[in-house]
Amino acid sequence: TNKKQIAVLAGDYIGPEIMSAGLKVLEAVSKNNQFDYEINAVPFGGAAIDETGDPLPDSTLEACKNSDAVLLAAVGGPKWDHAVKRPEQGLLEIRKDLNLFANIRPTVISSATKEYSPIKITDPVDFVIVRELTSGIYFGQPREKTSTMAIDTMRYTANEIERVAKVAFEMASHRRNHVTLVDKANVLATSKFWREITEGVAKNYPEVEYDTSYVDTASMKIISSPAQFDVILTENLFGDILSDEAAQITGSLGTIPSMSKGKTGPALYEPIHGSAPDIAGKKIADPISMIKSVAMMLENSFGRGDMAIQINQAIDEVYKKGILTPDLGGSSSTEEVTNLIIKSI
Amino acid sequence: TNKKQIAVLAGDYIGPEIMSAGLKVLEAVSKNNQFDYEINAVPFGGAAIDETGDPLPDSTLEACKNSDAVLLAAVGGPKWDHAVKRPEQGLLEIRKDLNLFANIRPTVISSATKEYSPIKITDPVDFVIVRELTSGIYFGQPREKTSTMAIDTMRYTANEIERVAKVAFEMASHRRNHVTLVDKANVLATSKFWREITEGVAKNYPEVEYDTSYVDTASMKIISSPAQFDVILTENLFGDILSDEAAQITGSLGTIPSMSKGKTGPALYEPIHGSAPDIAGKKIADPISMIKSVAMMLENSFGRGDMAIQINQAIDEVYKKGILTPDLGGSSSTEEVTNLIIKSI
Ligand SMILES: CC(C)[C@H](C(=O)O)[C@@H](O)C(=O)O
Ligand SMILES: CC(C)[C@H](C(=O)O)[C@@H](O)C(=O)O
Repeated sequence: TNKKQIAVLAGDYIGPEIMSAGLKVLEAVSKNNQFDYEINAVPFGGAAIDETGDPLPDSTLEACKNSDAVLLAAVGGPKWDHAVKRPEQGLLEIRKDLNLFANIRPTVISSATKEYSPIKITDPVDFVIVRELTSGIYFGQPREKTSTMAIDTMRYTANEIERVAKVAFEMASHRRNHVTLVDKANVLATSKFWREITEGVAKNYPEVEYDTSYVDTASMKIISSPAQFDVILTENLFGDILSDEAAQITGSLGTIPSMSKGKTGPALYEPIHGSAPDIAGKKIADPISMIKSVAMMLENSFGRGDMAIQINQAIDEVYKKGILTPDLGGSSSTEEVTNLIIKSI
Repeated sequence: TNKKQIAVLAGDYIGPEIMSAGLKVLEAVSKNNQFDYEINAVPFGGAAIDETGDPLPDSTLEACKNSDAVLLAAVGGPKWDHAVKRPEQGLLEIRKDLNLFANIRPTVISSATKEYSPIKITDPVDFVIVRELTSGIYFGQPREKTSTMAIDTMRYTANEIERVAKVAFEMASHRRNHVTLVDKANVLATSKFWREITEGVAKNYPEVEYDTSYVDTASMKIISSPAQFDVILTENLFGDILSDEAAQITGSLGTIPSMSKGKTGPALYEPIHGSAPDIAGKKIADPISMIKSVAMMLENSFGRGDMAIQINQAIDEVYKKGILTPDLGGSSSTEEVTNLIIKSI
């Protein structure tokens, strides 16, 4: 069969609600565009803990490996706070096991969405964060906790930095030709190493402007002058903090997708927000982040930028008509937003 | 002599300019209030590298140890980017050598300063960050860089966490009775340890509400709902990033002081911003951060909250009259702002 295989990991709390919205949009846009695919829905996160005791069962990992792309909604929540292995552990494992070393999160504030930003903004904002996702202090050994002290290790090899730096420069060369490495090179040995290796990669992209920023300064600039960024390249922990901050300045966390990819194998697409236990079951979760994740998948894993454009234009309609979920100050339901997007495709 | 001894470290670029402003205000307020002190100005940072090759000469450290309080302006800059030992190294050493384990940075947005905030804000904001300053990944061993890999170590002992946690709870009990521990306990062993130890300290302050937040979430909340915080307690690296972010939401980095203190010995007071090489010599550096650092010193090291109030009220006057430096959108000089403050005392 030449049907594209998509592994679907709905996860927990609002996860299944927004996944269902994403899949409906995928179905609608595929019909219009002769895109043939097959869904393989598998348990992951808390849902998988309940079924098997493991947030990432072998069968789920196999299904992902055998797919052409992975769609993930959201995992975790208070129910599993005291589980032996928590849902988040599954997230770290799937990243590592699929070797998804580059996590890409867009921050876009256009004239259409400017009013939702908590920041007084004049210039349009359009940058991406390329976050290293399978190394650094998230995975470094030793990691240890006794009754008197604890240790984590931030560790990077040249290869780990080089491959993700290439992703950033490659992206920049198709965007506005500007990469900013964010680090703490005035303190950390790993950051000094990031500078060395990234400078080497930068030499191969003479058309791309390359500069660096300390992470504390970057956390200010994301607020004071976000328009100056094109591609931010950074290590795992800094990327975690800065990408959430960047999401917040759009004012609509519920609308931001992400892509995680390696050199080969399926990429993974997911909203950047979590499973939002507080609004689960209320049918008001914002489906836009999931629907944009579907668009990102069509463009990047299946070369269907045309279909992605159709989805994104349909999303513009819900903003124009003000059919929005409560996170954006609206009073519409997940279903109403989804249906309008489908109608507009 | 019962004159208070103050070690003065002016540092680099705008450092001496704002230090001079701070000392003038100290002189003025002291005359009005029979406060007796002696200044001991010593080289530090780049200035000390130029003189002695070392950003923290032994004689400077001695002078600090023999003082009742240390005033520091700002260090570093491009001139010493390739120095064997950089000015920032001096900063890390002085913190460690004076055992200044708690760094306290206030974030205040009042109705008077609201208009300078880049954030659309309704509620007044008033929180402090208590940042651990002498341990964690800034000092942990091994720290190593070879041609193929690099390592940093985040390490905390129970004692290091406990003593700074106590500072946070003590502060909260004199403020709005609320401590938020910021960590990454869903990933880091050190963060799980912070939670354990801090919970223990919290038990001794039953009147203080205690909660926790992941660092990525906190970086969002500082933008979306800063009014919810009272005291944020966090480890060294997270505190570095979040306190700069918090400073930025006030819109006036040039106005924020800080205090670093240990259990005994002199505390150190300094602006949170750097040495601003780009505006050095132009006589337009905002002196407010330094002047507020002087006020913080008078209140906390010398029990002269009355004098601190006089300074802070005088600072309100410059806002009211719009006599402000360019960082706040004004066109006044360092000297004009300083003189108005002195006149208003
Ligand atoms: C849930 C957590 C482990 C995860 C991370 O820190 O990477 C999340 O914050 C994210 O950014 O995807
Ligand atoms: C200059 C640098 C080493 C320092 C730090 O990271 O602590 C600075 O950013 C600060 O916050 O005081």
